[in-house]
Amino acid sequence: MNDEGKIRELIAGWNENTRNGDVDAVLASMTEDVVFTVVGRAPFGKREFEAASRQLKDTKIDAQSEVIEVQVRGETAWARVRLSVTMTTPDGKVARREGFVLSIYTKHPDGRWLLARDANLLGPPS
Amino acid sequence: MNDEGKIRELIAGWNENTRNGDVDAVLASMTEDVVFTVVGRAPFGKREFEAASRQLKDTKIDAQSEVIEVQVRGETAWARVRLSVTMTTPDGKVARREGFVLSIYTKHPDGRWLLARDANLLGPPS
Repeated sequence: MNDEGKIRELIAGWNENTRNGDVDAVLASMTEDVVFTVVGRAPFGKREFEAASRQLKDTKIDAQSEVIEVQVRGETAWARVRLSVTMTTPDGKVARREGFVLSIYTKHPDGRWLLARDANLLGPPS
Repeated sequence: MNDEGKIRELIAGWNENTRNGDVDAVLASMTEDVVFTVVGRAPFGKREFEAASRQLKDTKIDAQSEVIEVQVRGETAWARVRLSVTMTTPDGKVARREGFVLSIYTKHPDGRWLLARDANLLGPPS
């Protein structure tokens, strides 16, 4: 599989792992120094991502990514996706958010691509 | 000057050109296929950026970027900055916005770096 294919697979796998509540697999898809930039709070890293994910362990998260582009430049790549996320809490409350994401991936010596930087412009819940 | 220095200069120059209302110079700092991702609207390109900038020609825009990181990987680079923008309309109304930006730059055959993708998480005016 070529690099673009690997990154598309990583994006799809991320959503599948999120849906399955497999936080460890999601964490294995990002670099140690990953930075997430989102609306309404300061950028945060892998440990904060993990803490937030584990807090949501009883919430069902269904994320769908429509890949708009994947551009590979050597051992760095970027992707833009349109993301829709539906979160269902244990008491049945449903929140839906959608928006665009710009992500940067880096290729590691073992050939795996990992998320390195992410800017997530999901809007407020509707 | 090394590539990181050139990108830092591009970021500072962008703000200076914006302050001076030099739309052409700002447009010359981006690729033809640049994509801007912002909160609350669909991603847009160079033509839309130009139209919005020319509409604001009577508004004073003072942007300050605090560069958090610049990472160069071959002919691709990314930067994260904390951006503060103060806009003053001709009738003296002042709006201030601030937030984080993730930008991707690409190096062109002539050695210049240009903005290729930008995700701007500026919050609402305050």
